[in-house]
Amino acid sequence: MTAYAPGAAVRARTLRVVDLIRKKRDGGELTGEEIRYLISAYTQGAIPDYQVSAWLMAVVLKGMTPAELAALTDAMLHSGQVLDFSDIASPKVDKHSTGGVGDKTSLILAPIVAAGGPTVPMISGRGLGHTGGTLDKLEAIPGFNVNLPLDKFRSVLQECGCALIGQTAEIAPADKKLYALRDVTGTVESPYLICASIMSKKLAEGLDALVLDVKTGSGAFMKNDHDAGYLAQLMVDTGRRMGKRVVALITDMDQPLGRAVGNALEVAECIEVLRGAGPDDLRDLSVELSGWMFYLGERTASVEEGKKLALEMIGGGYALEKFRQVIQFQGGDAGVIDDPGRLPRAAHTVDIASPATGYVAAIQCEQVGTASVVLGGGREKKEDEVDPAVGLILHKKVGDAVSAGEPLVTVHYNSDARLLEARRLLEQSYRIVPEPTMNLRPLVHKVIGE
Amino acid sequence: MTAYAPGAAVRARTLRVVDLIRKKRDGGELTGEEIRYLISAYTQGAIPDYQVSAWLMAVVLKGMTPAELAALTDAMLHSGQVLDFSDIASPKVDKHSTGGVGDKTSLILAPIVAAGGPTVPMISGRGLGHTGGTLDKLEAIPGFNVNLPLDKFRSVLQECGCALIGQTAEIAPADKKLYALRDVTGTVESPYLICASIMSKKLAEGLDALVLDVKTGSGAFMKNDHDAGYLAQLMVDTGRRMGKRVVALITDMDQPLGRAVGNALEVAECIEVLRGAGPDDLRDLSVELSGWMFYLGERTASVEEGKKLALEMIGGGYALEKFRQVIQFQGGDAGVIDDPGRLPRAAHTVDIASPATGYVAAIQCEQVGTASVVLGGGREKKEDEVDPAVGLILHKKVGDAVSAGEPLVTVHYNSDARLLEARRLLEQSYRIVPEPTMNLRPLVHKVIGE
Repeated sequence: MTAYAPGAAVRARTLRVVDLIRKKRDGGELTGEEIRYLISAYTQGAIPDYQVSAWLMAVVLKGMTPAELAALTDAMLHSGQVLDFSDIASPKVDKHSTGGVGDKTSLILAPIVAAGGPTVPMISGRGLGHTGGTLDKLEAIPGFNVNLPLDKFRSVLQECGCALIGQTAEIAPADKKLYALRDVTGTVESPYLICASIMSKKLAEGLDALVLDVKTGSGAFMKNDHDAGYLAQLMVDTGRRMGKRVVALITDMDQPLGRAVGNALEVAECIEVLRGAGPDDLRDLSVELSGWMFYLGERTASVEEGKKLALEMIGGGYALEKFRQVIQFQGGDAGVIDDPGRLPRAAHTVDIASPATGYVAAIQCEQVGTASVVLGGGREKKEDEVDPAVGLILHKKVGDAVSAGEPLVTVHYNSDARLLEARRLLEQSYRIVPEPTMNLRPLVHKVIGE
Repeated sequence: MTAYAPGAAVRARTLRVVDLIRKKRDGGELTGEEIRYLISAYTQGAIPDYQVSAWLMAVVLKGMTPAELAALTDAMLHSGQVLDFSDIASPKVDKHSTGGVGDKTSLILAPIVAAGGPTVPMISGRGLGHTGGTLDKLEAIPGFNVNLPLDKFRSVLQECGCALIGQTAEIAPADKKLYALRDVTGTVESPYLICASIMSKKLAEGLDALVLDVKTGSGAFMKNDHDAGYLAQLMVDTGRRMGKRVVALITDMDQPLGRAVGNALEVAECIEVLRGAGPDDLRDLSVELSGWMFYLGERTASVEEGKKLALEMIGGGYALEKFRQVIQFQGGDAGVIDDPGRLPRAAHTVDIASPATGYVAAIQCEQVGTASVVLGGGREKKEDEVDPAVGLILHKKVGDAVSAGEPLVTVHYNSDARLLEARRLLEQSYRIVPEPTMNLRPLVHKVIGE
């Protein structure tokens, strides 16, 4: 029905935004000028939400060309301030994850990489849906301030080598406004819009290099490798077009990463890893990602050397010291490093026991994340306050043997009503089978842009 | 990327509208209850425009099932008052046209059919884009009031047999609100949304039968027979599901209907036809549509007999008297019947001459309609006032022979600046070729639902 065009000749002269919406609806390509106009006028409040949401839905269903995506990312990036850390001599490197359950590597990577030389200017987000957020985790450390003004962010970076803050009003305001609209109009789910959102914020950080951790599996937003790979390729291409060194690792999120899910519990687990202990999967992925960050940051000649350097930063205690240092710089209680008991603790704990003897065949990872949200560890509505203390410790992961009655999960909770709902979710999350599972999924599925 | 669903489990409990948008976006079918909720909550202001526009765009791009379309039409129909004329004994019959250029048959059909017996409760619209609107034409008659309250509408119908008014606040308010949103969000162009809009209003008129005139060609919203036929079938099916007798005629709009384009000029041409004169195509189509209205209104046993009756109503002067009567009932100057000079007249006229000798091979009909809008005969923005006097008289139509310098069109205008733009459009509208055209398009392309 594309021919049906009431008064096209009349309207073309008066209603510009409608024409842009119709163009995308009909599968056309918007020019760079048209996309810049849409984004800048919307950010300035000159175009109403209802026109932009219609355009966003057309983008979700019709996609974007590489040129459109580059223009969109660029327009969003330049809707606010683009940071410039060229006065800091060492390369600026960051990592971004598309989000998962128990995905706490940012708190481990930033100190490892900063301890090894490069600078890590990390601007992170909050929990979204069933996933946790770096800012919520950092705020579990008493006093830790993620809302540094940009000049303070710069001075911490200069003195400490890493700093971890939230998105400020100055950075990519278009993304902030668009994201709020997408969230309530069913237009989150587009690789193009996700790419532009992530890359516009990350490229505003004044980076030289970026490692993308694109999650795939039951606890990720991309449930399969194909979707994850498609998004990863878009982000790598977009970043490179803007002159940055970028790779993307497609990594497993079919079960939670590590054993802790919940803000304070995850901070404690990060400290363990920085001490050289902690769960294997979390340590291995942290070393892998650090290796890539060192390599892309031109600190090492290969990823392998980068991984060796990461292990040295852990083994020598340098990474843990760097974490202590950044906590102090950002106003937090660095005493948690030596005494994790200073972190917030839930009033109660209870174990969820295995109903059968056998092997863990699968963990419905999104449900585990939702259980933590339900306990208060995340937000169901934007206004909700997060309870830093609640969460889960998983005693059994995929492939583990378990006896009937043995604890699968320990729940840390502050409300009986919330426990009830979380327990229901968790009891449905584990699949126990009589025979051992043969095909364990690898931690890193693929590297895009190697 | 349909798998990407942030926190679906968390949100399902809180954000119902988003879930409906996402369902349609992913090609799912909404239930009747879901559609009723969307429409009634939106009409009551409980759902914001930006969510509905995203849903509308998803409908444009993903379509609707027959059950969804029926539910949507029904929800829009019941968003306001549904008229009941069961106290009027004769069958209630109406016609609806999807809109064209010079398409003035409503003013001819209503008196013909009412003179022949059935009652015609006609609720019409205004010009849209390059097309004219029945209300704008009626208002060219000095004093004619299209804004009758519903009780007055009823009494005119009882006494006169026909009445012609505009959409009131009581009739299908959901359509009014949705249409205003669609107009500015690129979501007009969907056969499903067009069908629901038309049928919800028409079925609120308390009809027994409806004849749909679905236009096709360069001056119609549907540029080809396929699109026109698709929409026609949807409307016929929807009307019949609601227990009405409905047929749709796919009729030609590849050149203006009749010779007059512009409000007062078209009224004068309607009076000519009701006198038994006027252009052949306009008279033939009016008789054809009247024939179907008589037949569906069970006044005659066949369409052919209905056409004969229509010719009798014209030949005996009954239709013209009925037109005079309805003008009087609605407060208009019935003196225009005998003296069309009482209609508003433009200050100036000018002829546009043929640049060549030959035959008219084609007229770009949308451009002709736009020329009339540009002169002031229609609206470029909703707020614009219509100038009833301006317009065009076409001296040559497709197939006609023409000599170089002979007038193709006479322009009636009140502003030199507007003339300039209209002239440019008109000069590009005629295609003159040396040889006579062989394949003239028929007036009625097809009848759907016979």
